[in-house]
Amino acid sequence: MKNIVVIGGGTGTYITLTGLKEYPVNLSAIVAMSDSGGSTGILRDELGALPPGDIRRALVALSQSPQIMRDLFNYRFQNGGLGGHSFGNLFLTALEKITGDFEKAVEEAGKVLSIRGQVIPVTKDSTHLHAILEDGTEISGETNIDIPKHNGHLRISKVKLKPKARATKAAIDAIKNADLIVLSPGDLFTSLIPNLLVSGISEAIKKSRARLVYACNLTTKHGETDGFDADDFVKNIEKYLGGRKIDYVVAHNDFPSKKLLAKYRKEKKEPVLVPKNKKNRAYKLIRTDIASAKQYFRHDSYKLARILIMLTEFENVLSFLETEKR
Amino acid sequence: MKNIVVIGGGTGTYITLTGLKEYPVNLSAIVAMSDSGGSTGILRDELGALPPGDIRRALVALSQSPQIMRDLFNYRFQNGGLGGHSFGNLFLTALEKITGDFEKAVEEAGKVLSIRGQVIPVTKDSTHLHAILEDGTEISGETNIDIPKHNGHLRISKVKLKPKARATKAAIDAIKNADLIVLSPGDLFTSLIPNLLVSGISEAIKKSRARLVYACNLTTKHGETDGFDADDFVKNIEKYLGGRKIDYVVAHNDFPSKKLLAKYRKEKKEPVLVPKNKKNRAYKLIRTDIASAKQYFRHDSYKLARILIMLTEFENVLSFLETEKR
Repeated sequence: MKNIVVIGGGTGTYITLTGLKEYPVNLSAIVAMSDSGGSTGILRDELGALPPGDIRRALVALSQSPQIMRDLFNYRFQNGGLGGHSFGNLFLTALEKITGDFEKAVEEAGKVLSIRGQVIPVTKDSTHLHAILEDGTEISGETNIDIPKHNGHLRISKVKLKPKARATKAAIDAIKNADLIVLSPGDLFTSLIPNLLVSGISEAIKKSRARLVYACNLTTKHGETDGFDADDFVKNIEKYLGGRKIDYVVAHNDFPSKKLLAKYRKEKKEPVLVPKNKKNRAYKLIRTDIASAKQYFRHDSYKLARILIMLTEFENVLSFLETEKR
Repeated sequence: MKNIVVIGGGTGTYITLTGLKEYPVNLSAIVAMSDSGGSTGILRDELGALPPGDIRRALVALSQSPQIMRDLFNYRFQNGGLGGHSFGNLFLTALEKITGDFEKAVEEAGKVLSIRGQVIPVTKDSTHLHAILEDGTEISGETNIDIPKHNGHLRISKVKLKPKARATKAAIDAIKNADLIVLSPGDLFTSLIPNLLVSGISEAIKKSRARLVYACNLTTKHGETDGFDADDFVKNIEKYLGGRKIDYVVAHNDFPSKKLLAKYRKEKKEPVLVPKNKKNRAYKLIRTDIASAKQYFRHDSYKLARILIMLTEFENVLSFLETEKR
């Protein structure tokens, strides 16, 4: 079986894993560990726990348990001192406290959820994300970057982790043995790039013989990627890849419906455009239908997984796919 | 296989179940649902949950999972808004919220813990325990009776549930099919008798062809059973049995060490004595070594289970046991 490594954090990673787990591949999810908002933020502050939120989402994505167990892990308490806490976060934190080892906690939670594949925290060092804006302002903490309290018109010029964090051995090993590395869609600076900031990750990707594919976001995000086109996403990722280039970019081939477009514009989100006719772009562009036809303009798990699986198996088939058609 | 039903609530029930689960019997634990203290009390008050604490303890007792899962269910968070909450309680409450059915929650938790046998809430009606003291004072709430805020020298003359509660069908069925019903050791008025107050339970016990055995407490409890001997325990239980008599009482045959005795006396606890030479007592007395030789003067799971199993299988063997030797 082919080894696929998905790198990311939030909902985009959840969607990517949900599709891929249906295929007979060895699947590893490497997940960011710099979240600091909501239930996760409280567990970090009050209990000194490592951030469980993104790990929980990846575990649920890979779970083969009955729906009730997946619902349980995603359940949020509504009232009182527990209000806002996700049950799955409490599960991981309690296991971390018992075992004294976050990786062991993730492994045990994976057994309870009967996951397919493995979920790997990118680091076990407690660290926080910082962003430096183009005017030099430094913003501390993932949640303050994610829900922009800063002037949304200032671009992020750089992100970094404080203190520095070292990659887990499991993350390095998974990258080393990968046939395909998927940089998953999602928040660019707060979910995807935080993985590349962990010392050892970009070095391992650089050394890896795996194809490196980026499943490009469908929309921009206010305060993070306003006005970005596909090349802007790629350029920013490659800044943190230490010289390694992205081999493939998977992009959607159409706009959302007018109704959805209007809805997204209210949140200051725009569809991500792919610049036309760039003959000398370094990556191969795969432009096809990867969007959900439902109430959101986001990736469809199964459409995306199908393309990613083809990249592991049938590179040549890709030339038959519709490209550059928008 | 013989059907054994254990009725109770707290630590005494935990100990009883821990021993019995090693034997090839169909084991059912019927557990009190009127706890109102600690983590359980907060979940009742803030989230409108049914009380999970005693159910959790019984589930862990019957669990065949690796130690880590049992540790997880018993784990208590230390700090912040989660401080004092038992993880297992949160597990049951979250499942209750998702399924909308506490019995279903207990069943699912039982699967996660790979339990042997079944754990049955005595009722699914939300109810509280009230005690009336010999001077007529009424104390509301299990936790206020359990940790006596009342004058410890006034005896409890009666306990009742408010509002009234109906037994679950599963509890009635288990009693109906039982070969042996064990009234487990533990807090008399706050763990054991609250089960008998649930409407349908004493009626089912009365109708049952099962042998009814009481594993008598080793010590009295201040504020609840001060000065009680074995016959006082039996008399108080039988007040709530609607005419059915206890068939067997299993009592310990020795005193604790002087050191332990001194320790227990500091907590105003005394060994439970068995009145001598009562030729016309209605129950058969089985007096043998059932105490743990460790740091506490309490039942030993395996010694107690051995006697209970013999009661299901080899009634005649019992005459060979040491009796009335103290």
